[in-house]
Amino acid sequence: MSLPSKVSVLKGSKEGVAVAATVPGRTSLKSNEVALRVTHSGVCGTDLHHIHDDMVLGHEGVGVVEAVGDAVTRFKAGDRVGFGYVKDGCGKCDHCLKHQYFYCKVAPVQYGATSHDQGSWSDFAVWTETALHKIPDNIPSGEAAPFLCAGLTVFTPMVKYGIKPGHRVGILGIGGLGHLAIQFARALGAHITVFSTSTSKKEEALKLGASDFWLSQDVKTKKPELKLDYLITTATRLPDWDVFMEQMEPFGQVILLGLTTEPLNLPYLPIMLKEISIHGALTSTPEEFDAMLEFASKHKIRPIIEEFPMTEEGAAAAIAKLNDGSIRYRGVLVS
Amino acid sequence: MSLPSKVSVLKGSKEGVAVAATVPGRTSLKSNEVALRVTHSGVCGTDLHHIHDDMVLGHEGVGVVEAVGDAVTRFKAGDRVGFGYVKDGCGKCDHCLKHQYFYCKVAPVQYGATSHDQGSWSDFAVWTETALHKIPDNIPSGEAAPFLCAGLTVFTPMVKYGIKPGHRVGILGIGGLGHLAIQFARALGAHITVFSTSTSKKEEALKLGASDFWLSQDVKTKKPELKLDYLITTATRLPDWDVFMEQMEPFGQVILLGLTTEPLNLPYLPIMLKEISIHGALTSTPEEFDAMLEFASKHKIRPIIEEFPMTEEGAAAAIAKLNDGSIRYRGVLVS
Repeated sequence: MSLPSKVSVLKGSKEGVAVAATVPGRTSLKSNEVALRVTHSGVCGTDLHHIHDDMVLGHEGVGVVEAVGDAVTRFKAGDRVGFGYVKDGCGKCDHCLKHQYFYCKVAPVQYGATSHDQGSWSDFAVWTETALHKIPDNIPSGEAAPFLCAGLTVFTPMVKYGIKPGHRVGILGIGGLGHLAIQFARALGAHITVFSTSTSKKEEALKLGASDFWLSQDVKTKKPELKLDYLITTATRLPDWDVFMEQMEPFGQVILLGLTTEPLNLPYLPIMLKEISIHGALTSTPEEFDAMLEFASKHKIRPIIEEFPMTEEGAAAAIAKLNDGSIRYRGVLVS
Repeated sequence: MSLPSKVSVLKGSKEGVAVAATVPGRTSLKSNEVALRVTHSGVCGTDLHHIHDDMVLGHEGVGVVEAVGDAVTRFKAGDRVGFGYVKDGCGKCDHCLKHQYFYCKVAPVQYGATSHDQGSWSDFAVWTETALHKIPDNIPSGEAAPFLCAGLTVFTPMVKYGIKPGHRVGILGIGGLGHLAIQFARALGAHITVFSTSTSKKEEALKLGASDFWLSQDVKTKKPELKLDYLITTATRLPDWDVFMEQMEPFGQVILLGLTTEPLNLPYLPIMLKEISIHGALTSTPEEFDAMLEFASKHKIRPIIEEFPMTEEGAAAAIAKLNDGSIRYRGVLVS
């Protein structure tokens, strides 16, 4: 095995653009490490949070295993694998014992916080074995990438909070998260109503599995009585809660996805009188990661992607489309 | 069997006080009905919502079965039974099929909405068999009454949302709900921190099972790092959410009890970054009702009560102490 001593990457910069750079490669592996040649990476809103930072960008990485350490048992050279936002923790704290490595305070290994020389906007990456996940054979690498953050983000809370056949699920926003949420909810057997601020994505929402489409602003005036068991917010703008709480069934659950600095100003009485639950949702365990990939594979769920070259220009183009909302629906850099 | 043709009751009035009155008794029973002589009734904040209404008050009723209809199988004359807020539904709608009778839109039978001639501030009451619950032998009738609304309100969400041994549970407010919440949480094996705006109930909170006591206002300045898995709000004033969200563990759950017209203005980011869930909690199924009584019986949980005669004067005195916050901790009218 011969590992590259220099790796081409795209890093954040003071100017707020992704710049090409070279970082030293890791030329030897620890026993539990895996080296992979990165072939594809998603472009996620969270990458933009780090676009000013001196670090290798990207946390939806797909590639091919190049070499493995002595103790690695789950992967071998040639395997197609992926990694996401959270890579590792101390393994011993309360959170790690529950495999919630994101919350490890002792030795967290995660995007933005540690390992600034490793990322997926890069030709090469080295991670511990447990940070990696086998990509199912029927999912092409480019389409696999968006599952590794966006797919996880939507799938894990859907399962955790119990979406089942027959449930009526509202999905607010059709973007990187929303277009996957529609497909996962459909595969889970739910009846899906999609809400958007324009009709431009209506046809696609219906094609992806929605039964019903509403302009968000029409819900207030037309009062459709949708009797939602779940409402999943995927947009960064929060909805008019008074209006949407009226659409919830007793014991309805709201799943909040995506980050915003807006406050969460909810009406108290409808939440009490219908016993509604509101959940913040962000991370997944490695088991949930594998379950998501297996489910996506079996149910032929696929992101709709736009590919860009993994270059300064490609990253800039992808980011521009992400920022202006014109991306359909997830950008993927190809090296 | 001989049922009274006139029943002495306390009703709401335009003046906002409970007034003595007589209502016609039900002198014959339907096959699924049970008549009971009411001996005790709790005085609950919800009764005050109806104090201006022309209806028999009271929904935490305990009494002795006087007679049963032909088809009644669970009770016989002489049994001690209790009833709460929700009595029945159509039995066929989506909500009734899940035994969530409170949400029945077809034929709900519940306090304040229907059956205005029946209540627990009354000598007598007739309900369908399924509205009634056997009072465990080791719970005296006076102490049984507060379980039938307050006890249910705190116990059901604790079990539903998974409070288990070792969990760290914060309880905000020590009143009719809070002093029962402490005991239920202790019996479920939790570590309990109580928050109150004064130290006047500190000793009692610790005696009831709290491990820890904090003045709510000190949490902001002293930042105790309580790492709460649950926060149960039992007060009608909502807490400083920024301060209390800091005290929550990842995946922490907030259980909202009690009604207020305040909005629920929450900070969005801590809810997302710790994946916190917020639950409104209000009702129980009949099965949850029986489970609560059995659990209270086995774990020797008892409300602390103040007894008053079931008269205009007694009701007025109980309401006055409820209103000024001096009741310790639940008023019970005794007929």
